[in-house]
Amino acid sequence: MTVNISIDAMGGDFGPNVTMEAITCVLGNHSDVCALVFGDRAALLSAVDQNLSHNILSRLDIRHCQSQVDCDDKPSNAVRSKQDSSMALALKSIKDGDAQACVSAGNTGVLMALGLFTLGTLPGISRPAICAEIPTDQGNKLMLDLGANVDCSAQQLYQFAVLGSYTAKLALDIAKPRVRLLNVGSEAGKGNNLVQTAARIIEQDTSLNYQGFVEGDGIFQGQADVVVCDGFSGNVALKAGEGVARYIYQKLSRLSAGQEGDFADLKSSIQPSLFNGAYLLGINGVVVKSHGGADVQGFSNALERAINAARHQLPSILSPELEKTIQVTSE
Amino acid sequence: MTVNISIDAMGGDFGPNVTMEAITCVLGNHSDVCALVFGDRAALLSAVDQNLSHNILSRLDIRHCQSQVDCDDKPSNAVRSKQDSSMALALKSIKDGDAQACVSAGNTGVLMALGLFTLGTLPGISRPAICAEIPTDQGNKLMLDLGANVDCSAQQLYQFAVLGSYTAKLALDIAKPRVRLLNVGSEAGKGNNLVQTAARIIEQDTSLNYQGFVEGDGIFQGQADVVVCDGFSGNVALKAGEGVARYIYQKLSRLSAGQEGDFADLKSSIQPSLFNGAYLLGINGVVVKSHGGADVQGFSNALERAINAARHQLPSILSPELEKTIQVTSE
Repeated sequence: MTVNISIDAMGGDFGPNVTMEAITCVLGNHSDVCALVFGDRAALLSAVDQNLSHNILSRLDIRHCQSQVDCDDKPSNAVRSKQDSSMALALKSIKDGDAQACVSAGNTGVLMALGLFTLGTLPGISRPAICAEIPTDQGNKLMLDLGANVDCSAQQLYQFAVLGSYTAKLALDIAKPRVRLLNVGSEAGKGNNLVQTAARIIEQDTSLNYQGFVEGDGIFQGQADVVVCDGFSGNVALKAGEGVARYIYQKLSRLSAGQEGDFADLKSSIQPSLFNGAYLLGINGVVVKSHGGADVQGFSNALERAINAARHQLPSILSPELEKTIQVTSE
Repeated sequence: MTVNISIDAMGGDFGPNVTMEAITCVLGNHSDVCALVFGDRAALLSAVDQNLSHNILSRLDIRHCQSQVDCDDKPSNAVRSKQDSSMALALKSIKDGDAQACVSAGNTGVLMALGLFTLGTLPGISRPAICAEIPTDQGNKLMLDLGANVDCSAQQLYQFAVLGSYTAKLALDIAKPRVRLLNVGSEAGKGNNLVQTAARIIEQDTSLNYQGFVEGDGIFQGQADVVVCDGFSGNVALKAGEGVARYIYQKLSRLSAGQEGDFADLKSSIQPSLFNGAYLLGINGVVVKSHGGADVQGFSNALERAINAARHQLPSILSPELEKTIQVTSE
C-alpha cells in the first residue's frame, strides 16, 4: 500500500534547505512513499536537487501555499488567520484523505491548535499529548506528555497511559507495554498528589500493564515501555537528558573527529537527531512534530516516525479501542 | 580555624567500608579538619586502615551509637524512636557546637525530619530544600529543590531563590548569582500557574539577580547560577540528566579501560560521583546528604562540600541576611 505523507516544508529554523533534502532522502529509502509538500513553490523548487532520479521526483508533489506559520504566531490567532499556511494545508490533506500522516518543524503550539481545529481529538481524549520515542539500551520507548499540558489532571494522565499503551503496541510492536508513572521515587507512597491520584485511576484499568513508578534515571534505562507524566515535568526531564547527551556528544565529536571505530560508534549512538520526531498523540490523525533546529538527519528521522505510524494505521485502529477502553473515572 | 565535621558513618548502601575510607582520605587532604564519626564502634574500627599516620588518627574521633536509621524507617517514627541513632547524634553535635557541618548517606526523609527536629529552620523559611551543585562547563552551579517538596507553593519557590542566591554567593563565590526558574520554555508567558506566580513574586525582590526562565537543557550548560524549581520536576530533571551521564560513562569506561589521555579525561569529567553531596538548605545548620549508593570518591565529594560550607560559615551568615531579605508576599 502506498503511504502519502504531507509535509509543512516551511517550518523549522532552516526551512526548505533542510526539509527538502530530508524528504528526497527518505523517498529514496522508501519506494512506496509519496510526499505532499506544502510551502512557497519557488523556495521549495530551488531547494530540490535537479539531479534526482525521475522515480523520486515523480513521488514529490509540491503544493504552493500563500503563507506560513511564524515562530511567534499565537495559536488562537493562527487558527483564524493562517488557514492558508503550509502548516494548515498539510494538516487539511489528512482530513481530506490525501495523506495518512503530517510532519512539521514549525511552532508547536500552533501545530497543536491547527491540528485540533482541523482533525479533532480521538474518543475519550480531552487534550492531546506530545509523545516522543526515547532511545534506550532496551530499544525505543515512549514518553508522554512532553509539554502540551503543563497543568494536568490525574484523569488526563490516565488518558495518556491508554494512548501511550496502544501506540507502543502498534508503532513499537510491544505486546504488553509496561506503563509507569514518572515520579521522585519508586515506592508506592512517594510523590505529589497528582501522581498518587493518577496511580489509583490507572491501576483500576486492567487492560493496562501498569507497573508502578519510574524515576528520572529509569527513563533512559528502558525501565518502562511507556513513561507517563505531566507536560511540565516530562518536558524538563527530557530536555535535561538531551542536554547532557548533547554536551557529551559535542565533546566526543571533537575527540573522535575523523576517527572510525568504537568511539565513533558510541558518538553516533547518542547523536541528538535520533531523539527527533514527536507524535501529537490524541489528535484524530497522525501528526509528527520535528524540533525546529533539526538537521537533515533529524528531519528525516521525524519523517520515518510518520511513515511508520501511517503504515500501522494509527489512529484509525486506536479510535475504536479507545471507545471500548477509556473509563471516565471520578478523581 | 579548625573545622569539625560530624558524620553518620552507618548510612548508605555500603556503610563503614565506604564512609571510613572516604573520611580518612579527606582528613589526609585537609590538615585543619577533624572528623566526629558516629556509629557502631566495632564496625567503624574494623573499617579503619591501621597503617594510617598518627596525624590522621588523632583527628578521627569515633563516637559509639546504640542504633542506626534504616532505609525503610518512616520520618515521623524515626524522630520518636531513633534519637540514639548515628544520624540523630551526628546532627545533635551541630546543635551542641561540637561540629560545624554534618554528612550522612542515610534515608533522606529521616535526615530531613531529624535535621528539622534538632536544628530548626532559618528565618523566613517554611520548609528546607535539597540543593545540589551541578557541574557545568561554566563551573559548578546550584539547583533546588530536588525532591524535599513535591507539592510546592510559589512563595516556597521564592524562598528557594533567596536561599540559593545567598548560598551561591558564599559557597561558590559568585558575586551576583543569576537566578532562573526551571520551565518548559524561556519566553515570559510560558509554563504552568506555579512558575508564572513564582516569577511575579521573585522579580519583585530587587536584591535578587533574577534572569527569567531556564529550560531543562540549560541546567547543564550553566545558563543559571541558581536553578529554582519545585521538588518534583527538579528531581526528575536531575535524575534524567544523571541517568544519561551514567549511561554514557559506562560505555566510555568499557571503551577506554586502561587508556590514558583525552577519552579518559572526558570519562572522568562526567563521572557520576562528581554530582554527589546535596545541601539540605534552609535547616539552621550545614547538613549534606550523600547518595546512598556513593562510592569512596562520591562520599569524599560530599565531605568536601560540607567542609567548604562550614568554612564559609553557612548558615550563621545566611541567618541575618534572610531576616533582612525575605519578604512575605501574598500569592
